[in-house]
Amino acid sequence: MSTNPSQDAQQVRQGVQDWWRTSIIDMAPGEIRYRGYPIQELIGRVSFAQMIWLMTRGELPTEPQGRLLDAALMSAVDHGPQAPSIAIARMAATCGVGLNNAMASAVNVLGDVHGGAGEQAVEMYLDIAARIDGGQEPAAAVRAGLDAAIATYGKFVSGFGHRFHPIDPRAPRLLELVDEAAQAGVVNGRFAQIARAVEDELAQRKGGKRIPLNIDGATAVIYAELGFPAPLARGLFCLSRSVGILAHAWEQSQQGGRNKGPIPREYLWRYDGPAQRSVPDSNS
Amino acid sequence: MSTNPSQDAQQVRQGVQDWWRTSIIDMAPGEIRYRGYPIQELIGRVSFAQMIWLMTRGELPTEPQGRLLDAALMSAVDHGPQAPSIAIARMAATCGVGLNNAMASAVNVLGDVHGGAGEQAVEMYLDIAARIDGGQEPAAAVRAGLDAAIATYGKFVSGFGHRFHPIDPRAPRLLELVDEAAQAGVVNGRFAQIARAVEDELAQRKGGKRIPLNIDGATAVIYAELGFPAPLARGLFCLSRSVGILAHAWEQSQQGGRNKGPIPREYLWRYDGPAQRSVPDSNS
Amino acid sequence: MSTNPSQDAQQVRQGVQDWWRTSIIDMAPGEIRYRGYPIQELIGRVSFAQMIWLMTRGELPTEPQGRLLDAALMSAVDHGPQAPSIAIARMAATCGVGLNNAMASAVNVLGDVHGGAGEQAVEMYLDIAARIDGGQEPAAAVRAGLDAAIATYGKFVSGFGHRFHPIDPRAPRLLELVDEAAQAGVVNGRFAQIARAVEDELAQRKGGKRIPLNIDGATAVIYAELGFPAPLARGLFCLSRSVGILAHAWEQSQQGGRNKGPIPREYLWRYDGPAQRSVPDSNS
Amino acid sequence: MSTNPSQDAQQVRQGVQDWWRTSIIDMAPGEIRYRGYPIQELIGRVSFAQMIWLMTRGELPTEPQGRLLDAALMSAVDHGPQAPSIAIARMAATCGVGLNNAMASAVNVLGDVHGGAGEQAVEMYLDIAARIDGGQEPAAAVRAGLDAAIATYGKFVSGFGHRFHPIDPRAPRLLELVDEAAQAGVVNGRFAQIARAVEDELAQRKGGKRIPLNIDGATAVIYAELGFPAPLARGLFCLSRSVGILAHAWEQSQQGGRNKGPIPREYLWRYDGPAQRSVPDSNS
Repeated sequence: MSTNPSQDAQQVRQGVQDWWRTSIIDMAPGEIRYRGYPIQELIGRVSFAQMIWLMTRGELPTEPQGRLLDAALMSAVDHGPQAPSIAIARMAATCGVGLNNAMASAVNVLGDVHGGAGEQAVEMYLDIAARIDGGQEPAAAVRAGLDAAIATYGKFVSGFGHRFHPIDPRAPRLLELVDEAAQAGVVNGRFAQIARAVEDELAQRKGGKRIPLNIDGATAVIYAELGFPAPLARGLFCLSRSVGILAHAWEQSQQGGRNKGPIPREYLWRYDGPAQRSVPDSNS
Repeated sequence: MSTNPSQDAQQVRQGVQDWWRTSIIDMAPGEIRYRGYPIQELIGRVSFAQMIWLMTRGELPTEPQGRLLDAALMSAVDHGPQAPSIAIARMAATCGVGLNNAMASAVNVLGDVHGGAGEQAVEMYLDIAARIDGGQEPAAAVRAGLDAAIATYGKFVSGFGHRFHPIDPRAPRLLELVDEAAQAGVVNGRFAQIARAVEDELAQRKGGKRIPLNIDGATAVIYAELGFPAPLARGLFCLSRSVGILAHAWEQSQQGGRNKGPIPREYLWRYDGPAQRSVPDSNS
Repeated sequence: MSTNPSQDAQQVRQGVQDWWRTSIIDMAPGEIRYRGYPIQELIGRVSFAQMIWLMTRGELPTEPQGRLLDAALMSAVDHGPQAPSIAIARMAATCGVGLNNAMASAVNVLGDVHGGAGEQAVEMYLDIAARIDGGQEPAAAVRAGLDAAIATYGKFVSGFGHRFHPIDPRAPRLLELVDEAAQAGVVNGRFAQIARAVEDELAQRKGGKRIPLNIDGATAVIYAELGFPAPLARGLFCLSRSVGILAHAWEQSQQGGRNKGPIPREYLWRYDGPAQRSVPDSNS
Repeated sequence: MSTNPSQDAQQVRQGVQDWWRTSIIDMAPGEIRYRGYPIQELIGRVSFAQMIWLMTRGELPTEPQGRLLDAALMSAVDHGPQAPSIAIARMAATCGVGLNNAMASAVNVLGDVHGGAGEQAVEMYLDIAARIDGGQEPAAAVRAGLDAAIATYGKFVSGFGHRFHPIDPRAPRLLELVDEAAQAGVVNGRFAQIARAVEDELAQRKGGKRIPLNIDGATAVIYAELGFPAPLARGLFCLSRSVGILAHAWEQSQQGGRNKGPIPREYLWRYDGPAQRSVPDSNS
């Protein structure tokens, strides 16, 4: 048992402090360090994209790694007010809440269906790579990885195909950047190769009809090349899409409007429930 | 200075416990008390509406008070998928998030414009009552209170008028319940009188055209009669509307659909920004 | 092709209205019907709990069914500021957001771990019932259903055991209500029996140590007895816990405080990342 | 009246499309343009920070403008788990919700108190500038602007002083960047001058004790110099802090833990409500 009063109290204090353990940020009065780097040394020398890397990964990226991450982030900011996330941000902005609240309601819906495709594509790429590393022949690994993804997430393969764009204009350009980075030795290029092999395999299964890589599949290539674990692909997409969400919430707040619903007021929904009826007498 | 080790530690511990001070709930292993009442005594004897009162007010309501609160809560659960809150819940349900998330994104937009009318109406009623208590003649107090509300919140007086219903079918029925409760001595009836006087004053200002009490104005009468402070009117509305939000999120999840946007896919938005242009060469 | 101008437009209009199809609510100017019942007939005759049933299930419950649902809802409103949902509501209230926003941030975290136990328990009860209906001997069905639940959700069986209460004081009282309702023919009593059999089976596996039913397991019995599908158990818990969330957000807002963090300000977290270091020169 | 069937339908369709009017994004199958720029031209040439500018402002920044915005964004990503936003993100991560949901609950609390200081500081700077432009003598304009800010937001002047840091290490470094940009003609330098004058005025009022510029006051200088309207300062802070929120949610999810509350489990809150009591008999 402790004989020193302050030692006992120190243990209690430490128990509380340990409850919130982190290796991201350290502070003392007048000092803030991220992953060990004093903030005043980072400011002006490390870009926003590099800071995102440092915060989520623990180390600074090289400059070209940071630029590739930056490209993935800037390319997925928005897909228009027909996306639920963007529509929600705009409607929220007319309901008397702050920009932070409009952003929250919108980012919140970037779940498995609306925000998870990148994560699922990274998973598939990593799975295929692991199969190859485990000795499987590349083509077989692609087929097996694709089958596994379909078994888990359904027949619409995450990262491939788009219900609106025959070819998603973001994907080929992003892959060009990956190819350049691979030639420069910044990344390995392995996951670009895997993604293309998946695209080929899909085409073969569809009798030649191509289901091309989309924005999620292309950013997933970048995230996999840069070594991000799959769940962070969703987190990074949330950061990226938050930009479009903010821009649309702001534009809507400038347009005005109060309690803006999804469709113009003169179009009510279609009701297909029971016809008018009376509450039974048993309910007094 | 403390000489007892455990005393020192106890002070630290207490500092932490005090950080989360509450008079709502008390616990020990095997025991839970709300406002002093053991939970096992409340279950089966206190209704959900009465529990809402106990939790927010500190004491149990009488049974008829509880019933009046219940009526206010049950009457405002839903106003259809054209309300942003309901549309958001339904869209969220198609994005791969849980019911709790769909509810959160939706409740979140019940801000000043979409969810604050009841709160603002209670404020106005209390303000008018305070003016009368302060010696002002009732008609003058109504005019002054109305003017103050308009000065703060704009010309659409919260609690009166409806952009869709010429007469909101919920309001007269709720006022009937208030009148019955006043006759039975459950409530005073004062705020029903004030609300009607505001309605008359509004009609006079509009050359006889009536701007009738709506759901928010009517539930605000009940909340004021029952002694709820104004901000809780918004909180209670959030509880009430959460029911519709849940029902619609659930119905949508049963209908299926993925990434459901606000309008059918074939209707894109109207773009009114700059025509297509090239990125200037200064951006390398 | 249409020769009637308005017919063509009507099809477009209908396509838009069909996009928001519901059987919950129908409206016309001056009219609101929930599941066919005019709102003015429901007000004063149908309780908040009955309305929750009507909205989520499509038909009105009998009065005793409504009372059993009411008991489940009122019993789970709060478990104190140590629950993440409640702490979040209180912290949010000090950050300059509305009660609706505080409620949203809090309800949002009622996911699989914090809000899903009831849903998972209903699933297990329904699974065991289905096994018995399929001809399996009851004791074997319990064992198989329990094994399946553990395989899916892990060794802590949802609905049983509590890390704080040796016996959760809410559970036995709720089961009493179910027993009374079963004796009165309001419910069948089958799921209470299944829950008790699960409890016995768990005790046997633990060498006699009982892992008693908790609040989630007990409300799950009620929801299953009343015919709610499993996912609605989570939705109903969200409605219930929203009450505690509101009460705590409100209490905190009355206590004051700005930017209240999880622990008192003098206790910083423990940092366990890299020691202070310099940004490498490669970052210009 | 229309005689052409498709013309009538076209009007209905247009009414729907106009409901979602935007000048941010335009699309056609295979084409996406932001503010007129095809996405494939932006990728690889425009940074994430520049894209944030384009989306919220409508035009591309120059490269040095983009770099200054980047510095403001990267400097405010995190202030540790004692900030409610970060604590919420970490607690949410233990409740069985997705990273997107954890981010939403956290960003949601960046309201007037936790996230509005930058917005309020920009407001004050713009107000002082407008007073000078209106002919007021600079020192008088600073005094009047400061008085107005205090009258609106209270005695803690947004953007100045810190409860933890005697000098916020982020602020002087950010002002250096503004000074360099002013010398290079990238910005005017006017708002840096105003912020310093406010700091001097505050010191004079405190008998010489300096209340130095903090992170919010410093980023507000940058946002004002770059021409962002005040509300976007909050939006940009939300984007910035989202990075820390994501990093902490992710770190917490890697640490594990289930239903992590604000303080260790052995420390319950302090209850200061009524002592144990019985439900009165009037509640049957």
